Amino acid sequence: MHAIGIDIGGTKIAAALVDELGTIIRSDRRPTTASDPRGIEDAVVEMITDLSEGEEVVAAGIAAAGFIDAAQSTVYYGPNVNWRHEPLRATLEARLEMPILIENDANAAGWAEFTFGAGRGYSDMVTLTIGTGVGGAIVANSRLFRGGFGCAAELGHLRVVPGGRLCGCGAHGCIEQYGSGRALLRIATEMADAGGIGLGLAAARERKGKLTGKEVGRLIQEGDNGALAALRQLGGSLGQACSSLAAVLDPQIFVFGGGVAAAGELLLEPIRAAYLENLPARGFHPEAEFAIAQLVNDAGVVGAADLARKHVLAQ
Amino acid sequence: MHAIGIDIGGTKIAAALVDELGTIIRSDRRPTTASDPRGIEDAVVEMITDLSEGEEVVAAGIAAAGFIDAAQSTVYYGPNVNWRHEPLRATLEARLEMPILIENDANAAGWAEFTFGAGRGYSDMVTLTIGTGVGGAIVANSRLFRGGFGCAAELGHLRVVPGGRLCGCGAHGCIEQYGSGRALLRIATEMADAGGIGLGLAAARERKGKLTGKEVGRLIQEGDNGALAALRQLGGSLGQACSSLAAVLDPQIFVFGGGVAAAGELLLEPIRAAYLENLPARGFHPEAEFAIAQLVNDAGVVGAADLARKHVLAQ
Amino acid sequence: MHAIGIDIGGTKIAAALVDELGTIIRSDRRPTTASDPRGIEDAVVEMITDLSEGEEVVAAGIAAAGFIDAAQSTVYYGPNVNWRHEPLRATLEARLEMPILIENDANAAGWAEFTFGAGRGYSDMVTLTIGTGVGGAIVANSRLFRGGFGCAAELGHLRVVPGGRLCGCGAHGCIEQYGSGRALLRIATEMADAGGIGLGLAAARERKGKLTGKEVGRLIQEGDNGALAALRQLGGSLGQACSSLAAVLDPQIFVFGGGVAAAGELLLEPIRAAYLENLPARGFHPEAEFAIAQLVNDAGVVGAADLARKHVLAQ
Amino acid sequence: MHAIGIDIGGTKIAAALVDELGTIIRSDRRPTTASDPRGIEDAVVEMITDLSEGEEVVAAGIAAAGFIDAAQSTVYYGPNVNWRHEPLRATLEARLEMPILIENDANAAGWAEFTFGAGRGYSDMVTLTIGTGVGGAIVANSRLFRGGFGCAAELGHLRVVPGGRLCGCGAHGCIEQYGSGRALLRIATEMADAGGIGLGLAAARERKGKLTGKEVGRLIQEGDNGALAALRQLGGSLGQACSSLAAVLDPQIFVFGGGVAAAGELLLEPIRAAYLENLPARGFHPEAEFAIAQLVNDAGVVGAADLARKHVLAQ
Repeated sequence: MHAIGIDIGGTKIAAALVDELGTIIRSDRRPTTASDPRGIEDAVVEMITDLSEGEEVVAAGIAAAGFIDAAQSTVYYGPNVNWRHEPLRATLEARLEMPILIENDANAAGWAEFTFGAGRGYSDMVTLTIGTGVGGAIVANSRLFRGGFGCAAELGHLRVVPGGRLCGCGAHGCIEQYGSGRALLRIATEMADAGGIGLGLAAARERKGKLTGKEVGRLIQEGDNGALAALRQLGGSLGQACSSLAAVLDPQIFVFGGGVAAAGELLLEPIRAAYLENLPARGFHPEAEFAIAQLVNDAGVVGAADLARKHVLAQ
Repeated sequence: MHAIGIDIGGTKIAAALVDELGTIIRSDRRPTTASDPRGIEDAVVEMITDLSEGEEVVAAGIAAAGFIDAAQSTVYYGPNVNWRHEPLRATLEARLEMPILIENDANAAGWAEFTFGAGRGYSDMVTLTIGTGVGGAIVANSRLFRGGFGCAAELGHLRVVPGGRLCGCGAHGCIEQYGSGRALLRIATEMADAGGIGLGLAAARERKGKLTGKEVGRLIQEGDNGALAALRQLGGSLGQACSSLAAVLDPQIFVFGGGVAAAGELLLEPIRAAYLENLPARGFHPEAEFAIAQLVNDAGVVGAADLARKHVLAQ
Repeated sequence: MHAIGIDIGGTKIAAALVDELGTIIRSDRRPTTASDPRGIEDAVVEMITDLSEGEEVVAAGIAAAGFIDAAQSTVYYGPNVNWRHEPLRATLEARLEMPILIENDANAAGWAEFTFGAGRGYSDMVTLTIGTGVGGAIVANSRLFRGGFGCAAELGHLRVVPGGRLCGCGAHGCIEQYGSGRALLRIATEMADAGGIGLGLAAARERKGKLTGKEVGRLIQEGDNGALAALRQLGGSLGQACSSLAAVLDPQIFVFGGGVAAAGELLLEPIRAAYLENLPARGFHPEAEFAIAQLVNDAGVVGAADLARKHVLAQ
Repeated sequence: MHAIGIDIGGTKIAAALVDELGTIIRSDRRPTTASDPRGIEDAVVEMITDLSEGEEVVAAGIAAAGFIDAAQSTVYYGPNVNWRHEPLRATLEARLEMPILIENDANAAGWAEFTFGAGRGYSDMVTLTIGTGVGGAIVANSRLFRGGFGCAAELGHLRVVPGGRLCGCGAHGCIEQYGSGRALLRIATEMADAGGIGLGLAAARERKGKLTGKEVGRLIQEGDNGALAALRQLGGSLGQACSSLAAVLDPQIFVFGGGVAAAGELLLEPIRAAYLENLPARGFHPEAEFAIAQLVNDAGVVGAADLARKHVLAQ
């Protein structure tokens, strides 16, 4: 029994027909018309109709950034598309005659990772997606943790510095401002300005006009000391957040996804070190494992499809 | 069907026979022989035997401070009694022929509050017990949240100040150092030293030889401005922690127990203000409620009994 | 007995014939020729001559930004017009044969507010004018407080952050950098850059090319969460300054004027909260009231006229 | 026409019969029975009766630490004597048949300094009394500035460091915590702990068991580099506060009294330097003078007497 997963991102809408083992049978992709919510709905309806053709599809899961209500019907607020209390599930079910489930995109990706990726074999997992921002997902006792209002696992907004940097959420000092891809670029730029160990970064900046995530990633792979120092600073902040998350959530494993996670063990090492340095009751508290996500690009659609299928089957 | 709850504290062991509605039928109490773990076991066995006499008892739940394993059998580490990887469940079941469940004491108290107290009618609750330290319990989707190793909800060890005060857990800047009864006493003592608004505190200290939690509590009730200022500072720190916990756990309600919670609305007011001031995505994020715990002294035994009964019935 | 009030602003010169009750009989307005001080003098002389025609006018008060000497004769320094130790009073009296008084513009506006607006019925008032910068006026024991050199009540330059943001006055950390309309625009722009809760601000910026005070004000009125968060941050800084001003000046009421004060209670609420949180000897110190100014656009001319009339009558 | 001045301090009550030129004719002194407010009243009544014998006395002024209401009748709150909303004026007038005026002690001392000491010849003065704490007095336009509730000029509670040291007033970061005699002792002790330049302080501490204000004062006089460094740090903080006070109050002169002011020019020099470094609109803003108080021990009684006499004569 197949299900369809849709992932509405800031620039593109990805869609896939997914089987029970998380394998993608067929997929589709369209640009996101962020300022035209109706256009996005039309695109989603068309993609689901196309992918369903000639298939037995039990449900479709829609992953989107933002706050989704606990009933998984309404988008309270979406940062990419201008949705405010949008009853997306009702709108789509009226047009599609198929069970629809709305899910936060980081939750969907985390679920895919738990079910088919680095989280297999565990019951309690925390995923941190290090993209432009920091997304989070929590799996507890083998279930996705959604919270009382559906807004749990906004892990990028754990505060790590009181009165720290202004965050897009309006608060100050969120880990997103110290541990995201955007933060890595900021740290790298500061290093370029400082000279010394940052001279490689400064040279790259001069070549390209400005530093980009791609350039910093390339320098990390090449072993540039400035870029590695920036990555270690990022990892240190993330590891400190993990020690707080361990006190609250006590996962068996932390899984890191998103573009920055391509740095692999170079990223995990400083995270692990800072986690251990700050772990409450170290020595008594069992220590979590740390891993890189395995389903990089497809996690959103695979997770959304799987959650939708399991939701329908559980009824 | 009755169950027995036991709460092994630092100074006394409380025991009670509890019915399905959380009502205590009979209770017992003995001093804790902290340096003699065998003596504690003997006391627990005797109390359970006494309370069971002539009753149909389905199970006994043992609440104790410390880390309990996910299988609820073993005390990894107890701060009050010198247990290290102690197989308490097996030891007691061998002597009692009754199903035994070991539970963290803050979890037991939180569960009682959720089931019979301020948490009734909600599905997602966070409890912070403001006693000497800061204990925590998380109820998510109407289940107690225990974490992958059984050590979740150690909410007192959420870090709020990087490089802050050294905590008993070996880490720095835990909320326990800014939001506990011990912290209240420290802040009040600093105010007494500073004179001025702290003169009422200083006078109480002179009368009694040193400030105690009881004295500070009395001054708060009397409206002493210094004691109220200390309480507001405490509440501000707790409210900041709540805004981070909202991002991670998204509870519908925060419930505050422990001795300091006797301050009631005087404590809740600064907590609520700091929570709102620091809430990520304020305006978009649904706002939690804040309440004082209702089952003050009996929460541990009632919760331990109820969890043990439900565990047995669920099998 | 009427008096004339003139308010020389950065872009326009406002003039009015004002009666004893603060009512404007007739008014006039011309553009400010900032680079041509003689042209400004000519305009002022003409406006006074026109407004006096057929009226019994006892005096004229000239309000201007900058430092005015204690004798109210000389502009030490004006930020809008290029005056340096300008003997404006003597120059004008030579051409007009009417008593002339020079007054700082924030003082004039504060006096109008005290006499005819939100300050009526009080004896001690502090006014903070939240425009592009932060202006101040102090009324103590029902008299305008000018200081030993005529430069008192430069309340925008109370330092709130040691080593903080560079201010236009050459010092660092002045409240003007955290509590002015310009600061609101900076905070709002940072929120727009940060995305998330700032998306409404970012969208407005994209529509208009850049954020303006008017746009931010509109978003505040519409309840945009990012704009409200920026306003709350501004209010928090202002409230902290008010608690210091209470220790020094102990006013019965703080009155907020200027463009940002159009936000009304939305501005006053975070100000009041931060004032109380930081008030020295809270509980013992009587608490001030907080209000929005009532004479928004005319305060400068009305106050300048009233001060000039009362100065002449007191002789 | 003579008047009597009384200064109720933390350890002693000073009383004096004072003539119109501020000369003390006769004086008296008794210990303060801080825990027995009635005993203090009795002592004040006796001292006034004794000093009045055979003299024509127009009034008595009582100086006491704390908040005095605007009508100068009631002590809202006294840090030394346990007065709370004490109607001291009515109580004393009922027993003495003489006009009584209650005044804040720092205000009384500041007034004496203005009338008979370092403030003569000025119209606008700020006094900072650097004793155990930091007291303040403001004279504006040759009148004592009392504020809307009688609690103005609490200059020790101007905040200089946001989130800084806890103050006796319950707030954080007040200048009293950085610029008082107690602060000097703390800084000196930190220097002693640090070794190096603080070795002289450390040696003095070892000789005496602990550092005292007297020892630090002696080392300052002897030119010990560590003690001078501590004094400079103190003066730097005070000078920063003066630059903020200049923006608000714009005095012609700052006068420093209290025990620490015995350091004279050694104290004034760093104050002046920090004032200039932080003065808003330096170059445009007229610069205040800085002086040491002249009436060290008698300022309280002389000022209280003079204020009482002038109050009676003004009626």
